[in-house]
Amino acid sequence: MTDFTSADRIWRNARLATMDPSQPKPYGLLEKHALIVRDGRIRAVVPDAELPARIPNCVDVAGRLITPGLIDCHTHLIFGGNRAQEWERRLNGVSYQQISAEGGGINATVQATRQSSEAELMRLAEQRLQRLINEGVTTIEIKSGYGLDLENEEKMLRVAGLLAQQQPVEISRTLLAAHATPPEYKSRSDEYIALVCETILPALWQKGLFEAVDAFCENVGFSPAQTERVFLAARELGIPVKGHVEQLSSLGGAQLVSRYRGLSADHMEYLNAEGVDAMRASGTVAVLLPGAFYFLNETQKPPVELLRQQHVPMALATDYNPGTSPFASLHLAMNMACVKFGLTPEEAWAGVTRHAAQALGRQQTHGQLAAGFMADFIVWDAEHPVEMVYEPGRNPLYQRIFRGEVSV
Amino acid sequence: MTDFTSADRIWRNARLATMDPSQPKPYGLLEKHALIVRDGRIRAVVPDAELPARIPNCVDVAGRLITPGLIDCHTHLIFGGNRAQEWERRLNGVSYQQISAEGGGINATVQATRQSSEAELMRLAEQRLQRLINEGVTTIEIKSGYGLDLENEEKMLRVAGLLAQQQPVEISRTLLAAHATPPEYKSRSDEYIALVCETILPALWQKGLFEAVDAFCENVGFSPAQTERVFLAARELGIPVKGHVEQLSSLGGAQLVSRYRGLSADHMEYLNAEGVDAMRASGTVAVLLPGAFYFLNETQKPPVELLRQQHVPMALATDYNPGTSPFASLHLAMNMACVKFGLTPEEAWAGVTRHAAQALGRQQTHGQLAAGFMADFIVWDAEHPVEMVYEPGRNPLYQRIFRGEVSV
Ligand SMILES: [Zn+2]
Ligand SMILES: [Zn+2]
Repeated sequence: MTDFTSADRIWRNARLATMDPSQPKPYGLLEKHALIVRDGRIRAVVPDAELPARIPNCVDVAGRLITPGLIDCHTHLIFGGNRAQEWERRLNGVSYQQISAEGGGINATVQATRQSSEAELMRLAEQRLQRLINEGVTTIEIKSGYGLDLENEEKMLRVAGLLAQQQPVEISRTLLAAHATPPEYKSRSDEYIALVCETILPALWQKGLFEAVDAFCENVGFSPAQTERVFLAARELGIPVKGHVEQLSSLGGAQLVSRYRGLSADHMEYLNAEGVDAMRASGTVAVLLPGAFYFLNETQKPPVELLRQQHVPMALATDYNPGTSPFASLHLAMNMACVKFGLTPEEAWAGVTRHAAQALGRQQTHGQLAAGFMADFIVWDAEHPVEMVYEPGRNPLYQRIFRGEVSV
Repeated sequence: MTDFTSADRIWRNARLATMDPSQPKPYGLLEKHALIVRDGRIRAVVPDAELPARIPNCVDVAGRLITPGLIDCHTHLIFGGNRAQEWERRLNGVSYQQISAEGGGINATVQATRQSSEAELMRLAEQRLQRLINEGVTTIEIKSGYGLDLENEEKMLRVAGLLAQQQPVEISRTLLAAHATPPEYKSRSDEYIALVCETILPALWQKGLFEAVDAFCENVGFSPAQTERVFLAARELGIPVKGHVEQLSSLGGAQLVSRYRGLSADHMEYLNAEGVDAMRASGTVAVLLPGAFYFLNETQKPPVELLRQQHVPMALATDYNPGTSPFASLHLAMNMACVKFGLTPEEAWAGVTRHAAQALGRQQTHGQLAAGFMADFIVWDAEHPVEMVYEPGRNPLYQRIFRGEVSV
């Protein structure tokens, strides 16, 4: 029998969707169990029957469902401006070329982000973050990539750091300086990649402003050779990599990411069998982004059955960004992954917990309800985890716990 | 100059998206205007400059956007039970036939609805309704159709009436007894249609429990001949009709609805040119239901360009129901209509205001900001109506006014 002290906090009388793969039931379900929390971590998961009759600091959740806190492992949450009216013009028949020629598209976001103060970027990002927090998100990845020069990439990453200080959420920062070629380097993308590799990446790494490096490897982004230069620069400093790959065409980006033992390869609509094999061998997570698939009216789906067969872990994320996925809802992304990609609801839940943690290199500490994991979890006014996936607007969040403290 | 009394309430300093087609700008936009409200109606729409310096009961909305209250003109909001776990089984590979053979599908909802008390149906429907109200919905249509016998169709319509008494929302009730053949009439659908026409319809009409009659005309529903029997019974009593038609196949349901001068023909994926012509001639509204299109992974889109060319008004609705559209979000439906059907954001807004009002026979009094219309409107913390369409989870609702009274 476990001993309890006043340092423990206990949530009892719960149905736990532990998402622990060593548990035999779907979702790692455990009925009538309790979470014992101390110092921001889960100390133990025990049957209610093993609790002593009287214990201090105990919350009876009355049979409610508890899941791990959600993890959104791919977002572009910080940016200036608004692309809603540009989207409206496109729906009214104005071509992308026309809008781009007028300074629209990603260049509009880059310009607005460069012109925004840290305070203004904070204000906008806080609103977006709050919507994710309200849905039960406790860890979120945020990429730079709308600054595209040393000063403004740094500004974005600083804002991401400030968000984590002000809100009860853990933030994983990624340098995505290789997101697009900035206007001042037009037709000189190799020179811009040199700036990224030789200046931006090492300077911001030295300041401790990010933990992984990402690049957009695509016909409309950077070539595999350019992407590899970025990955090489990261490897020299021992920084983990990931990639936006195989979204619009099959360029072998998944194999490239895998050669560098990348944490994740993201998008994956055009992933082929060789790419899947490479990811399996390197332990790289496939991050599916159904919001962008939906918003772009893409029809090519990621090879979910192949990923399943090869046991490549599938994560899910919002890809929240103003151009291709303006949805700050991880519940909606889960629904879209099931409806559009054919994931099961259990796979969708693994995708925003255990597998999302792995995509961020946090699989030992995040994304499960098990001893030693962070005490980040959600009490839901729901009976079963499928409910949040089936009906994304419903949000039956009852209590949100971050590092053992009730925060919503 | 208008006179003002203490009976007037005024919202000033607004950007009005009047949705009034006699206004020249997109969305009927008027800058720096005021709404003068008395006795639950809009008495006048005037420029701020024409207001006297001191007026009683005046709200300064500080330049915020005001739109008409949203109208959800097609829902199945009232039902018992939950189909989330059935959906999960289907995603895990169990066939629809298998689930149906086990009593799943619509029969599960019929059984659960029949077994639910009025109080239980109220409790569930209130939660769903609250989510729509929170998004700015002020008028909602609710169909019967999960009772499928006299007693239970009556129960559903009574609950819809009670909802309107308890919540600040107008409810338009539709009899959809011809939704499906109930299990006790299996293989005897003609006999069930006779029950609908001879018993259920006249009895519940006499009790004043609905204002329009709907039927599901489809290979998996009722034939055009059976649907016409229902419409004939309605016409004899002078009751307006509408139809679930052309969703899964082209059976000429739009022409049938049009022959009976139906208020609306709903779904419309398989609508053809003859159907469009018939609807134009009869003044029937096309109600598009993109949530069901999305959830069923339908690929055949409604003929939006043809509807535009023929000036058939297009409305939009959630089709909220447990089997094919479990999304209580009209903002999401607007987004889906733009992304999936190619509507412009202005068409989407017309679809949930002016045209939705027309689908409910309320176009003289609902869905516009103009003199004589109901004082049902929303003040948004937004600059432009496109924002709610582009980013459906954001919901910048600032103040909701129903019949001239602030209600959220
Ligand atoms: Zn991205
Ligand atoms: Zn319907």
